[in-house]
Amino acid sequence: MSLDQVLSRIDTDLEASLDRLMAFLRIPSISTDPAHREDCARAADWLVEDLKSIGFDDAATRPTPGHAMVTGTAGAGGPHLMFYGHYDVQPVDPLNLWHRDPFDPAVEDTGDGKVIRARGAADDKGQLMTFVEACRAWVAVNGALPCKITMFFEGEEESGSPSLVPWMKDNAEEMKADIALICDTGLFDPDTPAISTMLRGLLGEELTITGPDRDLHSGMYGGPAMNPIRVLARVIASLHDETGRVTVPGFYDGVPELPDAQRAQWEALNFDAAGFLGAVGLTHPAGEADRTPLEMIWSRPTCEVNGITGGYAGEGFKTVLPSMASAKISFRLVGTQDPHAIRKSFRKMVEDMMPPDCSVEWHPHGAAPASVMSTENPAFEAARQALSKEWPNPAAFTGGGGSIPVAGYIKNIFEMDSMLIGFGRDDDQIHSPNEKYHLSSFHRGIRSWARILDALSKAE
Amino acid sequence: MSLDQVLSRIDTDLEASLDRLMAFLRIPSISTDPAHREDCARAADWLVEDLKSIGFDDAATRPTPGHAMVTGTAGAGGPHLMFYGHYDVQPVDPLNLWHRDPFDPAVEDTGDGKVIRARGAADDKGQLMTFVEACRAWVAVNGALPCKITMFFEGEEESGSPSLVPWMKDNAEEMKADIALICDTGLFDPDTPAISTMLRGLLGEELTITGPDRDLHSGMYGGPAMNPIRVLARVIASLHDETGRVTVPGFYDGVPELPDAQRAQWEALNFDAAGFLGAVGLTHPAGEADRTPLEMIWSRPTCEVNGITGGYAGEGFKTVLPSMASAKISFRLVGTQDPHAIRKSFRKMVEDMMPPDCSVEWHPHGAAPASVMSTENPAFEAARQALSKEWPNPAAFTGGGGSIPVAGYIKNIFEMDSMLIGFGRDDDQIHSPNEKYHLSSFHRGIRSWARILDALSKAE
Repeated sequence: MSLDQVLSRIDTDLEASLDRLMAFLRIPSISTDPAHREDCARAADWLVEDLKSIGFDDAATRPTPGHAMVTGTAGAGGPHLMFYGHYDVQPVDPLNLWHRDPFDPAVEDTGDGKVIRARGAADDKGQLMTFVEACRAWVAVNGALPCKITMFFEGEEESGSPSLVPWMKDNAEEMKADIALICDTGLFDPDTPAISTMLRGLLGEELTITGPDRDLHSGMYGGPAMNPIRVLARVIASLHDETGRVTVPGFYDGVPELPDAQRAQWEALNFDAAGFLGAVGLTHPAGEADRTPLEMIWSRPTCEVNGITGGYAGEGFKTVLPSMASAKISFRLVGTQDPHAIRKSFRKMVEDMMPPDCSVEWHPHGAAPASVMSTENPAFEAARQALSKEWPNPAAFTGGGGSIPVAGYIKNIFEMDSMLIGFGRDDDQIHSPNEKYHLSSFHRGIRSWARILDALSKAE
Repeated sequence: MSLDQVLSRIDTDLEASLDRLMAFLRIPSISTDPAHREDCARAADWLVEDLKSIGFDDAATRPTPGHAMVTGTAGAGGPHLMFYGHYDVQPVDPLNLWHRDPFDPAVEDTGDGKVIRARGAADDKGQLMTFVEACRAWVAVNGALPCKITMFFEGEEESGSPSLVPWMKDNAEEMKADIALICDTGLFDPDTPAISTMLRGLLGEELTITGPDRDLHSGMYGGPAMNPIRVLARVIASLHDETGRVTVPGFYDGVPELPDAQRAQWEALNFDAAGFLGAVGLTHPAGEADRTPLEMIWSRPTCEVNGITGGYAGEGFKTVLPSMASAKISFRLVGTQDPHAIRKSFRKMVEDMMPPDCSVEWHPHGAAPASVMSTENPAFEAARQALSKEWPNPAAFTGGGGSIPVAGYIKNIFEMDSMLIGFGRDDDQIHSPNEKYHLSSFHRGIRSWARILDALSKAE
């Protein structure tokens, strides 16, 4: 029976699948850094060649003002599935905290089993390839895919996706399918797969506060001259109240309370909050005083400072009173929070705090609302049952703390539901030094997609 | 009469004096940056050779654990004068704001007259050389110096002078003289020379706050994980109250109120506060609400943030929740404020603010008390009259916002008074891009020292 043949083909081909992933991981496709522009192009070309090798004859890079999209369609028969993943990766600094070159991938034996160590191993090259390898096995065993599949790979996911919405609007007719599959999320725990049905949105802002028109000597001007680092610190310190709530006016408009049924289902998952925090050296949940960590991550909005800089940060000491100070600040959004209304309110709040002689300049970095999936589409239950056959525990419908803005765009622009299914673990250290992806996530992930393709194609 | 001959020699030799300064300015002796260690050694050697060329036969570099001291003694007869200056310079970043290579000096014509443009032109190489050139002219005209002079040049003034106090203690007997001359301060205004009799002290601290034990994904951990940038911002925002006073407990112990006589003398100077602030693009004096800008700079203590860093500050955006955030903070001290007591109180205040799971590490950067000179020594009045003959307006006894810790050490270790006489201007942009020193400051500075040497040697 063909699914079993596909699954055994996946098992026997695992070493070759791993070699292909390693080649992909060696390309340092850091989309946010202009120095890596050519590397991003190389990663896109690599994907095109790999897709062609498994029958996506029309696979091609699709130019954008930024990094290219990669698309390709193959197979026949319904349903028509679209798969999304991204080939770009996060920056690697601080590089000195990596145990090895982030772009020289290796399989390491850890106390927790074998892992693939490299930037992008989990986010998202390893996850993207679980789907590609499942397709490869289907084609190898059956000579064709079980249904029509359109691949859609992006190269700007880690840098605010500036080209995504315009490109999707320009190519909506070509790209529309019956349902989208996205592999950029995680397992609930190592034994429990998850289909994310709630994902937080993301609003990114960069502000630069200017005081004096040049750097000053803090001896000559310290006192009478306003220091922009002090102004920026006051702004950041004012963003949360003593209960951990965000103080931006109107911020909580559109933030729903969790329905009792969902709260009950989540509580049944027995989330190990102590273990979650302990894994990164923390013992106390920060954030909103009256919320559980799981609730905070899956269903509450946040405001975080992702970076700050001003004055002299080099070795030694420099008694400078700087002209400028900057910060990168992001908001995670839930429910129907409107990123544009919050951006406006945040900017006004900050501008109202500027003392005389200080001005603030803004640089926006993306604005994506939260995505909340409807699980009424029978494909969700079919996928949940297929996943439950591959993993020790049955699959759960969960929330997700991270933001997959494309799911919202697919809903609004392509008018399609998305199923967010991924195989990462909480401790994969994505966006951090020493990112890894468990070999079992990769192997079972490929097998999971083979089962889901089988289930969805039969569901028609 | 020999002073007139010395002064005219200075005038005719000005071009050659300028060439020597240019050669000195071409050496990038940035003491705080280990990459420039060899350049600092080259600057010290250059001084030794120049001193030997004007009769300081024993001129030599004097090793320290850091950058070398340069010393030399020549001349006979009293009084025995010691001259201090420093051959190291500030870092040059942000380099992109410089109009030219900071270590390729040039004389530029500006609307405000000719200036020497280079890092160190004013702070302190140009000022140091005003005294050396005055000595050169004396020797050229009279075959000898008018009295016994000991040169004392340091190479760590811009990096907290870690070697200064131990070296001074080890060499106190050799170095003691009757009075010290220090050229590292400024004019009161372009027509009014100044002898600084009050200088603020400096306490430098660097703190690093650590929260999670690694950088985290702000989607996965944003909310329940404490962000050290937010903690650091709260610390900085808490350092001043709404009236601009520093909140560190006990900070104002030992801060004297200005004597009425001194207040009256300073008010008579008609300090142009609007012009002082306007020169750097400011219109409103910040700082303590009930103090004038001149009072704040000369006689009030401050707390400034000289640098801050945390998370991702590169191009683009990275949704990281960082493990660490750091700041460099300095305090300007007056009167009898005790830097060590303030360091202790500041550290306790910050440590008491740490939330659960956050810790703070400290790196000290120097701790020098304020120096307040006694003007009873007749040399002060003799120097004031000599300066008044060279400049359009009579010289004033002033305060100084910057810190010249060596003046305090000379008092405590060498048991000598110091006269702080310099020729810089407020807009010289020391510690900033495009530092400059007016050609007239250099020329008149040399002539001023010739007059002071004449007056002090006759005063015996």
